[in-house]
Amino acid sequence: MAFPAEFHDIAKRVNNWGRWGEADETGTLNLITNEVVRAAARTVHSGRRVPLALPLQQDGVQTGMIPGRVNPLRTMVMLNHEMFGPGTVATSDDIVTMGLQAATHWDALTHVSHSGRIYNGRPAGTVTAHGGAAFSGIEKIATLLSRGVLLDVARARGTDRLPGDHAVTPDDLAAAEELARTTVRAGDIVLVRTGQMRVCLAGDKHAYAFPSPGLSVRTPEWFHARDVAAVANDTLTFEIFPPEIEDLWLAVHALDLVEMGMPQGQNWNLEALSEACAEEGRYEFLLDATPQPFVGGVGSPVAPVAVL
Amino acid sequence: MAFPAEFHDIAKRVNNWGRWGEADETGTLNLITNEVVRAAARTVHSGRRVPLALPLQQDGVQTGMIPGRVNPLRTMVMLNHEMFGPGTVATSDDIVTMGLQAATHWDALTHVSHSGRIYNGRPAGTVTAHGGAAFSGIEKIATLLSRGVLLDVARARGTDRLPGDHAVTPDDLAAAEELARTTVRAGDIVLVRTGQMRVCLAGDKHAYAFPSPGLSVRTPEWFHARDVAAVANDTLTFEIFPPEIEDLWLAVHALDLVEMGMPQGQNWNLEALSEACAEEGRYEFLLDATPQPFVGGVGSPVAPVAVL
Amino acid sequence: MAFPAEFHDIAKRVNNWGRWGEADETGTLNLITNEVVRAAARTVHSGRRVPLALPLQQDGVQTGMIPGRVNPLRTMVMLNHEMFGPGTVATSDDIVTMGLQAATHWDALTHVSHSGRIYNGRPAGTVTAHGGAAFSGIEKIATLLSRGVLLDVARARGTDRLPGDHAVTPDDLAAAEELARTTVRAGDIVLVRTGQMRVCLAGDKHAYAFPSPGLSVRTPEWFHARDVAAVANDTLTFEIFPPEIEDLWLAVHALDLVEMGMPQGQNWNLEALSEACAEEGRYEFLLDATPQPFVGGVGSPVAPVAVL
Amino acid sequence: MAFPAEFHDIAKRVNNWGRWGEADETGTLNLITNEVVRAAARTVHSGRRVPLALPLQQDGVQTGMIPGRVNPLRTMVMLNHEMFGPGTVATSDDIVTMGLQAATHWDALTHVSHSGRIYNGRPAGTVTAHGGAAFSGIEKIATLLSRGVLLDVARARGTDRLPGDHAVTPDDLAAAEELARTTVRAGDIVLVRTGQMRVCLAGDKHAYAFPSPGLSVRTPEWFHARDVAAVANDTLTFEIFPPEIEDLWLAVHALDLVEMGMPQGQNWNLEALSEACAEEGRYEFLLDATPQPFVGGVGSPVAPVAVL
Repeated sequence: MAFPAEFHDIAKRVNNWGRWGEADETGTLNLITNEVVRAAARTVHSGRRVPLALPLQQDGVQTGMIPGRVNPLRTMVMLNHEMFGPGTVATSDDIVTMGLQAATHWDALTHVSHSGRIYNGRPAGTVTAHGGAAFSGIEKIATLLSRGVLLDVARARGTDRLPGDHAVTPDDLAAAEELARTTVRAGDIVLVRTGQMRVCLAGDKHAYAFPSPGLSVRTPEWFHARDVAAVANDTLTFEIFPPEIEDLWLAVHALDLVEMGMPQGQNWNLEALSEACAEEGRYEFLLDATPQPFVGGVGSPVAPVAVL
Repeated sequence: MAFPAEFHDIAKRVNNWGRWGEADETGTLNLITNEVVRAAARTVHSGRRVPLALPLQQDGVQTGMIPGRVNPLRTMVMLNHEMFGPGTVATSDDIVTMGLQAATHWDALTHVSHSGRIYNGRPAGTVTAHGGAAFSGIEKIATLLSRGVLLDVARARGTDRLPGDHAVTPDDLAAAEELARTTVRAGDIVLVRTGQMRVCLAGDKHAYAFPSPGLSVRTPEWFHARDVAAVANDTLTFEIFPPEIEDLWLAVHALDLVEMGMPQGQNWNLEALSEACAEEGRYEFLLDATPQPFVGGVGSPVAPVAVL
Repeated sequence: MAFPAEFHDIAKRVNNWGRWGEADETGTLNLITNEVVRAAARTVHSGRRVPLALPLQQDGVQTGMIPGRVNPLRTMVMLNHEMFGPGTVATSDDIVTMGLQAATHWDALTHVSHSGRIYNGRPAGTVTAHGGAAFSGIEKIATLLSRGVLLDVARARGTDRLPGDHAVTPDDLAAAEELARTTVRAGDIVLVRTGQMRVCLAGDKHAYAFPSPGLSVRTPEWFHARDVAAVANDTLTFEIFPPEIEDLWLAVHALDLVEMGMPQGQNWNLEALSEACAEEGRYEFLLDATPQPFVGGVGSPVAPVAVL
Repeated sequence: MAFPAEFHDIAKRVNNWGRWGEADETGTLNLITNEVVRAAARTVHSGRRVPLALPLQQDGVQTGMIPGRVNPLRTMVMLNHEMFGPGTVATSDDIVTMGLQAATHWDALTHVSHSGRIYNGRPAGTVTAHGGAAFSGIEKIATLLSRGVLLDVARARGTDRLPGDHAVTPDDLAAAEELARTTVRAGDIVLVRTGQMRVCLAGDKHAYAFPSPGLSVRTPEWFHARDVAAVANDTLTFEIFPPEIEDLWLAVHALDLVEMGMPQGQNWNLEALSEACAEEGRYEFLLDATPQPFVGGVGSPVAPVAVL
């Protein structure tokens, strides 16, 4: 199928191919400079830390809707095993099998392709079964730490949770920015709260998955204009699902990851952060959300920490 | 077998059972207060970030010496798959199977037991095959972020790498502290560099594993006296291996994890950090090393970031 | 809780502990002698082969009702990979993660324990996280091949499928034996068809799982009297589920596996075999159902073949 | 690189594309007719059963030489777990992660491709990361049971084990056939013993892997002339490794699997069978070696049973 003209127009406006050189593999993360990090460290006021990851467990958010994206299954390979003889110190070890996109995670830029291309114009075929992503694998993100800004769209709209058919628009983001009393700027990691995670935390994974509020196809331009480094939210699909334009599936993914070269985060639990920011009256913080360096990985679980 | 009297004497002196209450599951991490974190944020000067994790890959540090501790095997479950029809946005997904202790990781307090007990005096049998660690599982560590201090023992001794039979002593730590021109204090995360990682990075995993320099059985008291929150180093076994006292295997593990309730980190790559600290003339930094919240896990891979 | 007296009475009558010596680990499989196998080979008349395994795939019979019993997830580790250079022969390899009890499988005798004991009176604690079953692991079953007899209870009762609350009784087995026009004898592998698999094949895994017809607590004595080697059927739980005696869960498992030392098979697809036997007017055949030799395993997937 | 003319000549002579129709996915297995199976059943004389699979365990034959082909890692997900309350029947369950080609296995016809083609001329691209082999996946082999013939080349040559540089030739096969006092015929499964497995059983996996005796590039014609259904042997690589013709890697794989459409088996333990056949003076038997039906799989572990 062909993408509509609207898609191509936006793609052209947000495209960053070549902006950081032909060899670049990390896109908008180039915007996180030492100076940005120094400023991020200065946002720490209370020292309060808020973790943003969901627990990693067999009873996770995946329902089977996305084939192969399996919830973590952790098992013991040793259990109080006295490997040096009876009465010695005993050790316990464990292993896990899990989908790298199953829980709170980052999409690598290579998580999607369109028209045969990944970020920076490379062929989609550079991602292979044997080695994964030869370019823009998740391990190329050495660190992902910057100022974080919570755009609490649900709170700004006076609700606990946006309805399932709500596409988060640039106006929504601007209203949340106003609530946050800060201006989103170059190198920021923006967290967009829809409140959809409340459905999941209440135990209904299917309702959490679908239908889901999420980012509109019009938001990539907003992030691009502010030179945001990365965006994460509290939904399974990141973008509104089903999509706002009929049959235009995963358009936001294509624009953010492929065209702009901006990592996306999903299934982030922003509920405690929303409370903390409201209590402290500040929506900016130091955020570390460095992914695990899976070589060739097209995503990674992450245990983000906001420091207020 | 019976532990020697020396072990029991040290155990008594470093024991923290009950110190933070009978219900406590996180031990010395209680020492990381908001104030400690605020001070940690103020150590950021240059904004330079140094990642400390090894790449996660099939060709990892494990050699099979520790049965079941398998190197990460990442495979694609979708590869540029146009799930919504030909010509639509294509997605790639991956999964992993790996030992939670296989690469750069934290030991949860429940990683070892001795004499039938885990930290805070609970029965070792509270760790089960079905649920893992009912108490002091790795997910109980909500965040692990504080001031980090690099004790570069190898550099302080004027060598690239300590010999394989070198037990790092309190004197070694004190000398490295002097090099660092800071005093280790309550709530710090201490990184001890032996240089052993250079062997691994040079490609010899077997020589990296064994014999290996590492912490002496006399170091737990040093850490305990300073109320350190956590300690990590650049070896496979953390403590000197084989042990300094014949047949007293994993004594440091037992003292740190079980008696003191202090998490240990292994296989941290401290080479770039050593260079960075020497260049900047500072050995303190903000360190985020939050583990992945595996429910019931006795360990977790970690992608630590030092911010100088 | 205490088991009812009825359970203990049956247990005493079917108990085989010590029958094949204190060192025995394979129970009723001792009944498959060379002579039994020679006779089994002579049952082959048409040469028609009927496979009895379900496909191994992510979309398998498990629903999550049994935690950790994960459906097979097979992924490619190489995909037409020209490992010896461009234009050379290309290879594809794959790996799998799966529950050993997830699909068509045998329970090893160690799959259950009761009152702290496994088959032959050994302590349940001889099954460990580190090594699995030290005794009576599935690998101790070198081969599992004998005469097979289909007891088509559903057909004998003139129905496609027994209702969900139907406990298959000795009378049901006798009626099916009459339909089969053969007498079940020592060393036979008996396949009991309830027709419940039809629900699964029609796509309703939840209805397949529960409630389910299955073997009554009174059948172990019937099998014991005939010295049957092993029994398999076409349900998830083998025995009627929920149980016929309130709160007496898995009583048939305890009687067959622990007391009698007789392997049980579950999730066998007996639909095609039922048709073939009816067409050929014979319900006996050569059956190979040798499990995979997982060392220490408490079960194994199996791909049984009936040769008519 | 280009294949030598010799390869193309042989390929032409053994090619079976279209022989069983354009839709065929199972190649030479079509040769196993009901009549062949009836005759196979009549070969059973003693009733003695010989298992041919290696144990499935972490300490398996793989050394890491073939990336991603991981030895089986089996762990407990439940361990004597009283899921229905204290004192109830307790269950143990386990899971496995393993390479489908890691131990005793069959290659599916799709295990290799050459010149962009798989068996029956289909494009190699019909094997995908998402679904595996769309055609000729291992699950298409419903059953694999026939007459087995052991060609004990080592014994025929009066040695325990062929040297590492010995390419098994048609003359070797003919000499072993003479020893076997039977004529290989249409539909047979041929087992070729080199004795190389003795190296593995003695504990030296590296020497087992490489260099290894194995089938010569001239054997496919011999098998083709006799219309053999499948061939397995007791080596890691099946064919001589390194290859007899410089740089012509995996030529036998390409000829057998792609051109002829004949499944290959590797890592079969033929030592006990060799003894049994010599003792009974018969080298023919009923053989069941049905693979596990992994949907889309390019191989499968197998637990073959020879019945003498």
